[in-house]
Amino acid sequence: MSHLRQNVITKDWVIFATERSKRPHEFARSHDDIPPELPSYKHGCPFCQGNENPMETEYLRIEDERGWLVRIIPNKYPALSPIGDRVRHSEGIHRSITGVGYHEVLIEHPNHNVTIALMEIGDVINILKAYRQRYNFIRQDQRIESIIIFKNHGESAGTSLEHPHSQITATPVVPSQIRYRMIEAISYFDDMGECLFCYTLRDELKAKERIVLETEYFVTFIPYAALSPFHMWVFPRHHSSSFGDIGEPEIADLAYTLKTVLAKLYYGLNNPAYNYTIRSMPTDEKQSDYFHWYLAIVPRVNQAAGFELGSGMYINTAMPEDSAKFLREIEIP
Amino acid sequence: MSHLRQNVITKDWVIFATERSKRPHEFARSHDDIPPELPSYKHGCPFCQGNENPMETEYLRIEDERGWLVRIIPNKYPALSPIGDRVRHSEGIHRSITGVGYHEVLIEHPNHNVTIALMEIGDVINILKAYRQRYNFIRQDQRIESIIIFKNHGESAGTSLEHPHSQITATPVVPSQIRYRMIEAISYFDDMGECLFCYTLRDELKAKERIVLETEYFVTFIPYAALSPFHMWVFPRHHSSSFGDIGEPEIADLAYTLKTVLAKLYYGLNNPAYNYTIRSMPTDEKQSDYFHWYLAIVPRVNQAAGFELGSGMYINTAMPEDSAKFLREIEIP
Repeated sequence: MSHLRQNVITKDWVIFATERSKRPHEFARSHDDIPPELPSYKHGCPFCQGNENPMETEYLRIEDERGWLVRIIPNKYPALSPIGDRVRHSEGIHRSITGVGYHEVLIEHPNHNVTIALMEIGDVINILKAYRQRYNFIRQDQRIESIIIFKNHGESAGTSLEHPHSQITATPVVPSQIRYRMIEAISYFDDMGECLFCYTLRDELKAKERIVLETEYFVTFIPYAALSPFHMWVFPRHHSSSFGDIGEPEIADLAYTLKTVLAKLYYGLNNPAYNYTIRSMPTDEKQSDYFHWYLAIVPRVNQAAGFELGSGMYINTAMPEDSAKFLREIEIP
Repeated sequence: MSHLRQNVITKDWVIFATERSKRPHEFARSHDDIPPELPSYKHGCPFCQGNENPMETEYLRIEDERGWLVRIIPNKYPALSPIGDRVRHSEGIHRSITGVGYHEVLIEHPNHNVTIALMEIGDVINILKAYRQRYNFIRQDQRIESIIIFKNHGESAGTSLEHPHSQITATPVVPSQIRYRMIEAISYFDDMGECLFCYTLRDELKAKERIVLETEYFVTFIPYAALSPFHMWVFPRHHSSSFGDIGEPEIADLAYTLKTVLAKLYYGLNNPAYNYTIRSMPTDEKQSDYFHWYLAIVPRVNQAAGFELGSGMYINTAMPEDSAKFLREIEIP
């Protein structure tokens, strides 16, 4: 018989359908499905070194004597624009707001054919430093309520461009998903006097069986009620509400953590598609005792989502404890 | 500049990115992508007339002198099982519950190659009657909290079987998505003394521009903050919290409505993939003044969902008013 588990942070109930379950390695991407090797430079790729558009705004550049290492530029088809006023309109039941905000692309590397799992650690540090610098610039904009940094890797994760890149988005409203999580976290804080995320982390460290990686500043684990196989959360050990406040030693540690867990996916599951997202509290508050920033990684290892699309509930066919053990044991060459 | 709109029922904020916008007909499925015509009977299809498994439980059958017209059978890979006790387990931060519930398949027609958009109206009435009968059977089960009926049409909507079918699911907990909507609806009712859904419906009827179809008992419209192009809601005009309480004239009217709006999608957008879902209030209450059942139809006309996956916010590249006008004007041969 299957069973359901609740994620106390998101309040999602997830069905663990053990009758359908596969062994962890069976989620690996099939060898037929792996695209041919990419060149390090691709003619016509707008993100490759040498193909920069000189007319284009560049918001940020990290470089050394060889040239640029990371760049942040506008999204070619931005959903939100930094130019203009935030104007609310409310008429009867209808509420709207102008689309002010940020929608930027961070080009992670000058080369076309690299991926975080296989990068030098210094390259990953540069990406995270660029995230932080841009985060801290945007958070000062009074029109902005929420900043979300994310990466789509692979076609089934929603990306159409091969060249490694992330996106930085900032919205003039708080997405309801984040607001509902805050409400739950506040309610827990009021009842128990503690951050719900800190409590969850302590519990996972005690239980051990869902831990994927522990470092000095971060813990990576598969949540007790993971939405899908290999769904991971990376929590900072020390309470902090905003990614923007991350310090130097934590940046280096997070770079190691991110590279390592993505390499475990790369080697263990044949370079699957994935999304990752960095969630912080809304920017109108600088710190809070109840909200904890974190990085979520969701590999796209399952095909159909018919049940989820239709019912609004999730089915996971892999036990978090088994997936975590599998990833813990993956050796990175 | 884009703008954001809020759906007052779901609280979702949706970005309307008009710079990326396409004309409604440009969302049509390409002709290259349309699969070859299907046979009315397919050897080996477990849902075709003549291929029934005599060992299989059958929960419901509607038939006439020609044979069965609609059948409900167990899902071959059920996520939830009707056998067993609902047992909750709570330890520290962890909450789990046994996977009792229902996960059934409704075979919509004996023929392999039909679809609701093109069926006889009597066939659609049979489907809805079977939904209702099964809904009212399951709602009596004290272990059940929520019943969701849904259909996935087409591969990109998550179905792997061609033969037309729907799914009936019943869960031992209330999905958080439904609970959050109830909380919003209760709060509105407490403030205004009215059902938020009834208010929304009245507003849409007054505004007219997002209406797709009006009949005696139902109104189909594209919500003001539709999540995606051609996302439609079908609301009963008269307040009712549960699909199970639908009467005979409403069944016939809903069959006409469903067939008509799906035919508009079929002819207007070349038979796109879609999901539909019937949402009712949890089964522990029979009726409420604040919750209104409805049917949601979400065509899968957009490819990438990278932004949504990463940020938790939606981008819609079509204005609801334009999409509604387009669908209103589609003539059904």
